[in-house]
Amino acid sequence: MSVDWIAVDWGTSNLRAWAISRDGGIAHEASSASGMAKLARDEFEPALLALIGGWLPAGRKTLVVACGMVGARQGWIEVPYNEAPCPPASAQSARSPQTNDTRLDVRIIAGVMQRDPADVMRGEETQIAGLLQKSPSFDGVICLPGTHTKWVRVTGGKIVAFKSCMTGEVFGLLATQSVLRFSVGGDGWDEKEYAEAVRAGLERPESFASALFSIRASSLIAGLTQAAANARLSGLTIGTELAATRSYWNNHTVSIVDNGRQAALYAGALKIVGATTALLPAQDVTLAGLRAAHANFVRETT
Amino acid sequence: MSVDWIAVDWGTSNLRAWAISRDGGIAHEASSASGMAKLARDEFEPALLALIGGWLPAGRKTLVVACGMVGARQGWIEVPYNEAPCPPASAQSARSPQTNDTRLDVRIIAGVMQRDPADVMRGEETQIAGLLQKSPSFDGVICLPGTHTKWVRVTGGKIVAFKSCMTGEVFGLLATQSVLRFSVGGDGWDEKEYAEAVRAGLERPESFASALFSIRASSLIAGLTQAAANARLSGLTIGTELAATRSYWNNHTVSIVDNGRQAALYAGALKIVGATTALLPAQDVTLAGLRAAHANFVRETT
Repeated sequence: MSVDWIAVDWGTSNLRAWAISRDGGIAHEASSASGMAKLARDEFEPALLALIGGWLPAGRKTLVVACGMVGARQGWIEVPYNEAPCPPASAQSARSPQTNDTRLDVRIIAGVMQRDPADVMRGEETQIAGLLQKSPSFDGVICLPGTHTKWVRVTGGKIVAFKSCMTGEVFGLLATQSVLRFSVGGDGWDEKEYAEAVRAGLERPESFASALFSIRASSLIAGLTQAAANARLSGLTIGTELAATRSYWNNHTVSIVDNGRQAALYAGALKIVGATTALLPAQDVTLAGLRAAHANFVRETT
Repeated sequence: MSVDWIAVDWGTSNLRAWAISRDGGIAHEASSASGMAKLARDEFEPALLALIGGWLPAGRKTLVVACGMVGARQGWIEVPYNEAPCPPASAQSARSPQTNDTRLDVRIIAGVMQRDPADVMRGEETQIAGLLQKSPSFDGVICLPGTHTKWVRVTGGKIVAFKSCMTGEVFGLLATQSVLRFSVGGDGWDEKEYAEAVRAGLERPESFASALFSIRASSLIAGLTQAAANARLSGLTIGTELAATRSYWNNHTVSIVDNGRQAALYAGALKIVGATTALLPAQDVTLAGLRAAHANFVRETT
C-alpha cells in the first residue's frame, strides 16, 4: 500500500504514528516513548524520522499532521493557541516547523485556550474535532480523562467552555510518592468502597486533605486493606473532581473519551452519581480528528 | 555541667537531642539527618549513640526520653497508640526498646489515635503536653503545621478530637513534581494573591483540582508571575484546608505551634479569614513536653 500522509499523536510521554494509504486505510502503525518532555528542540525531527522514516515515499513531500504537546512552548515549535469559543483544530491556525529532511511537510495543530477562568488544552481539541467529524451536530459535554482531565462543552461545532482538573496527576503523586504509598498498591479493588468514596468526595469536597490522611490512619488502626485503600483514593479524587465539574455533568449525557482503565473509573463514578455516559474509543476520535485536519490542509492547498 | 537525662525529638526526617543538666538547663544540643525513614530497626541505637554517645556519664543508666516517629511500626519499637480522648504523652503508655549499650534507658512516648474519623499522631502529643505543662488550664484549639498538619481540640487536660490534613505533603509534591513546577519556584511572593487564593480555597474548596491547573494555564497565557504562582498555590492549599477544618478555627483562638515559615502562612491565612491566633515556639513546647514526660518517668520509678 502506498503511503498518502501520516497522522501523529505526540504527547508529553509518547509518540504514536499511523501511515494512511490513498484509500484511507492504515498502512503502518508505530509508537515510541519519545514524548515531548524527553526531547530538546533539535531532537524532534530525528525522533520522528526514527519512527516513520521508512514509510516516506522518495521524491515528494508527505504531509505529516500532528497534534498534542509537540506544539507547546517546550515542543518542536510553539503553535499559538486558538481562543475559545472556536472550532477545534482549524487548518489556518496550524504551524510548520523547519525540517532538514525534504520529504517532510509537518503541520502541527493548534491547542485551545480559554481566558477566564484561564485554561489550556493541546491534543484534546483534535479528539473533539474527531467527535464532530463523526457527529457534526453534536451538542453536549465531553470528558477526556488523563493526567489533566478536561471537561468540554461543545455547541454549534465550537468549543465554548472547558475545565481542566489535575486529578490524574495528583492521584499518581499521592499513590507513588506520598505517605499513602504505604497504604495503596497492587491490583486489588473494592467496588463498594469506591462508590462510598466517590459520594464522599462529591458531597464533602472540602474534606479532601483530611480524607486523604484518613486513608493512612485507617490502614494503621482500622485494618483498611490495600484493595479498599486503592478504591478509596481513586473515589475521593474523582468524586472531588465531580464536585468541581457539577455543571458539566448534571442533567447532561457525558461523552467520555475511552482511554481504558481511567475512563472506566470516570464512567463508574458518573453512574454512581446518576449521570448518563457514552464511551468513545480514544484512538478512533484521535484518528478521525487528524483525518479531518488533513482534509482541511489538502483543501487549503488545492 | 553534668548530664541528668536526654530529651530526643525523633521524626521521619531528623533526629534532635538535648542533654539536660541537674539544674534543668541545656548542657548540650545536637541534631542529625538520621530520621526514622532512613533507618532499619538495628540502626536506631547506633544513630542515637553517634549523636549523644559522648554525653552519657559512665557507670550508670541515663534516661533518654524520645517522641515522634521513632515509635512507629517502621521505627525502633512500635509503641501502641493511646486512644483519644486521653491526656497526651502519659508515662505508663511509653515503651522501651532493648539496647546493647548499658548506659541507655530509652523511653519512647506513645502517639495518639482517634477511631472515627480514623486519625493518628506521633510527636505532636508531646508538644501538646508541653503546652499543657505551661498552661495547665488550657482549653481550646491547637494547630500544628507540618507535612501532615494537625488540628487538635484540647479540654480538661485531654486531647478530645483531632484532624490531620496532608496539605504540606500535597503542596510539596505539587510544587516540585507536578506540571506546576514550571510555574512556581524561587523566593518571590505576592501577599494580595495569597489572600485571594486563601479566600478562594475556603469559599470554593470543590474547585481545588481545577484551580490548581488554572495556575499553570495562567502562567502560560495570562503572564502569572512565579511570585504570584507561589502565593496562589500556597493560598489554595491552605485555604482548602481551612474549609475542611472550619469547626476548629471558627469562633476560636487558634494556638499555632510555630515551626517558622509554614506557621507564618497558617497565621496569615487565619487572619485573612478573621480568626484569632497565638504563636507558640515549636522547640519550647517540644522540650516542655519531653520535660513533663521525664518528670512522670522519674515519679513512676521512685
